[in-house]
Amino acid sequence: MNNGNRAGEIAEILQERIAAMQAGERLPGVRELSAEFRASAATVSAALAELAALGLVAAEPGRGTFVTDRALPSEPDYSWQSQALGRARVDAARAARLGFHGTAEHIQLSWGYLSAELLPHEELRRIGSRAAKSPRARAMTPPAGSPELRRGIAADYRADPGDVLIVSGGQQGLVFALRTLAEPGSTVIVESPSYPGAILAAQSAGLALASVPADAEGIRVDRLAEELERTRARVVYLQPGYANPTGAVLSAERRARVLELAASAGAFVVENDWARHLGIESPPPPPLFGEDPHGHVVSVVSLSKSASPGLRLGAVIARGPAGERLRASRTADDLCVSPIVQEIALGLLTSNAWPRHLGRLRDALGERRDALLAAIRTTLPGVRVPHVPRGGLHLWARMPEGVHAGEFSAAAYAAGVLVGDGRHFFVDEAPGQFVRLSFGAVTGAQITEGVRRLAPLLPA
Amino acid sequence: MNNGNRAGEIAEILQERIAAMQAGERLPGVRELSAEFRASAATVSAALAELAALGLVAAEPGRGTFVTDRALPSEPDYSWQSQALGRARVDAARAARLGFHGTAEHIQLSWGYLSAELLPHEELRRIGSRAAKSPRARAMTPPAGSPELRRGIAADYRADPGDVLIVSGGQQGLVFALRTLAEPGSTVIVESPSYPGAILAAQSAGLALASVPADAEGIRVDRLAEELERTRARVVYLQPGYANPTGAVLSAERRARVLELAASAGAFVVENDWARHLGIESPPPPPLFGEDPHGHVVSVVSLSKSASPGLRLGAVIARGPAGERLRASRTADDLCVSPIVQEIALGLLTSNAWPRHLGRLRDALGERRDALLAAIRTTLPGVRVPHVPRGGLHLWARMPEGVHAGEFSAAAYAAGVLVGDGRHFFVDEAPGQFVRLSFGAVTGAQITEGVRRLAPLLPA
Repeated sequence: MNNGNRAGEIAEILQERIAAMQAGERLPGVRELSAEFRASAATVSAALAELAALGLVAAEPGRGTFVTDRALPSEPDYSWQSQALGRARVDAARAARLGFHGTAEHIQLSWGYLSAELLPHEELRRIGSRAAKSPRARAMTPPAGSPELRRGIAADYRADPGDVLIVSGGQQGLVFALRTLAEPGSTVIVESPSYPGAILAAQSAGLALASVPADAEGIRVDRLAEELERTRARVVYLQPGYANPTGAVLSAERRARVLELAASAGAFVVENDWARHLGIESPPPPPLFGEDPHGHVVSVVSLSKSASPGLRLGAVIARGPAGERLRASRTADDLCVSPIVQEIALGLLTSNAWPRHLGRLRDALGERRDALLAAIRTTLPGVRVPHVPRGGLHLWARMPEGVHAGEFSAAAYAAGVLVGDGRHFFVDEAPGQFVRLSFGAVTGAQITEGVRRLAPLLPA
Repeated sequence: MNNGNRAGEIAEILQERIAAMQAGERLPGVRELSAEFRASAATVSAALAELAALGLVAAEPGRGTFVTDRALPSEPDYSWQSQALGRARVDAARAARLGFHGTAEHIQLSWGYLSAELLPHEELRRIGSRAAKSPRARAMTPPAGSPELRRGIAADYRADPGDVLIVSGGQQGLVFALRTLAEPGSTVIVESPSYPGAILAAQSAGLALASVPADAEGIRVDRLAEELERTRARVVYLQPGYANPTGAVLSAERRARVLELAASAGAFVVENDWARHLGIESPPPPPLFGEDPHGHVVSVVSLSKSASPGLRLGAVIARGPAGERLRASRTADDLCVSPIVQEIALGLLTSNAWPRHLGRLRDALGERRDALLAAIRTTLPGVRVPHVPRGGLHLWARMPEGVHAGEFSAAAYAAGVLVGDGRHFFVDEAPGQFVRLSFGAVTGAQITEGVRRLAPLLPA
């Protein structure tokens, strides 16, 4: 047994050596190698036989053992992949933009997370360090998540803990929901504008997208009715509270109408409740989830937005067979969310620090929103913010006449400021020139400086 | 502004109260509520208007405000979902078995991970606690993963770090790879028997499955050639080193032939390299990845197997456009692996404790394998293990004549022992009665006791 092992070791060392040799070059003889490796001739011969079987060397009786062509790195040729791969589902350019936040020097005037100084660092350090020491961090949890964490999240939604599936952040929740609820090739309806990550998630799930305009009161329900009729879509994706990018809140009348439409179309409403903890003047209205007893609403919850971008933790809450399917595909998809991350989330949600953090956050977001609005008003007079959001992280701004959102955001990038090119928030062509400006990832000083740098990029 | 906020709060409190009331019951009047909430009549009226908009109450002029039917929890009716959901892709029963490891009292004589006492607890505590304190744990990493970790994993595979995508464990790696490389509805070829998680992953990706028999030298390449021809599959899933469940190692000749077949069919080989660190007599042969310059081989790497089940961390290594697509869909799918988990993995891989742990593990796995083999030989004489694996975690055992694997594993479960019903390792019907017996998740004492409990379940 040892012998086999030793031959394998020698073969591995020789393989590395061969990689640096030329085709046709001769290897040292068995006797020489025996001496070098302090191994028997049989062991060395076994090693050479292994290399020969791999096609890396060829023995020529009486002459020795020679390096073959195969041993040498050849120029890679990936052209065959284009045919094997078929059509790309995910728009790589859109994906790159979503994952992109410039360099450390850029002012993040468009980012969907909180800046570092708004995070509950001390609490997360303390809770994280405790979680790392627990043996629970090293054992798996059930696929749907740790029972305590599921209970904690269920309580916020007045849901049955059995209907909660813990996921690695809201984005995974979205993809899981869309992939499970809709058949590949079918249509999902989204508001327009909407979150680019949802557009990507739908692409990744192999779905077609249809969009319905939204205004300051959320999705236009008359148009939603038409689109459900036209597309026969069985899934509608909405952000009823502080929609990204517009900040709109779905009005009470429209909430009721959306639920009626879902019921009559036999459709799911995927409610992305990403801004649950990001209210400024008031929390967003309660989740739609609570107003629908028949399992039409599937809620996607995120902790990464309010706790820290690096805490990739969220949940999908779904009832009935839809919930069962979601939880079954979790096992197929990644078994469970890393237990240490679940432990940290549970520790945070059950700590006194959590409501304290949310209170501080509310104040800070209010100040920054107001500072950004004021800076726009005074420094970018041609830019209009039609709707002042009462929560969330973003302002949706219309460019002055003649300014192209794509060119403006490219110029802003060159000036060291990230702004969100509005075109990425539409499924099809943008109906106007918009940019998304975020106030959650920048300090007051960065807001002033960022807006100052944008001013010269606009017509006087 | 404050007024609006206060009305919302009152509405929320009233909503809870209403949920406990009967339809038709009258709410207290505005004056009474004003007194109770110390709010103006206008504020209370605004709160009631919100509830009316939600359809929870109805005002009857001159009589008061009454609870409607809608306010009351109605019996949920999920029947509409059956139509909306379409066909299930993932076999829920198979998924439940994969995620299942019985109760704490069960002896885990079939589980794909290491038992607690084989884990590097002290190192993981220390590294985890340090990682929790780093601000890097709270910031996002680029979608493909932390550059240092990608470099660390690339080194083992002699890969370009740019070709490495960090994922949340091997299972996620598998699903990502299958979903990205194969078009929904196309076929993936797997060995038979094969890892049930791969079968689930293919189902989750919407793929059809075809299987090719394997023996002690891995997949039968003659049959693979036929099946590639017949199905036009562009993806083959293999475990070249210590295949789960059989422990087979793909022979050198077959390795070369698999690569030739992939090249001529223009197909990908997804190499599940799960047992890279689980060699007993010797490490498994080097990854297939290194022998193919043209991007046919896509390797799936797992740390969860060797480091700890709860460390959900792995990688997919893929070159060319296939690698680009994989990394683009990561942004759509979950943005990045939780940074604290990446930090812990990096800390572990670069620590002196890592090779020490692997050495200890090798010895422990060898002892347990031999103990399980000996216990089977002496206590379960009718059970045959046709192939003694030189690594991995499992033995593949053939049942004595007349014993049904399903019935045997059910009886074993009732006797407090988990054994793997062999049928789940085949895509179609099992060609014989097999069970998988694992030696990685049990102590020596548990092996003795587990096998002792199995003996009376077999014919004398």
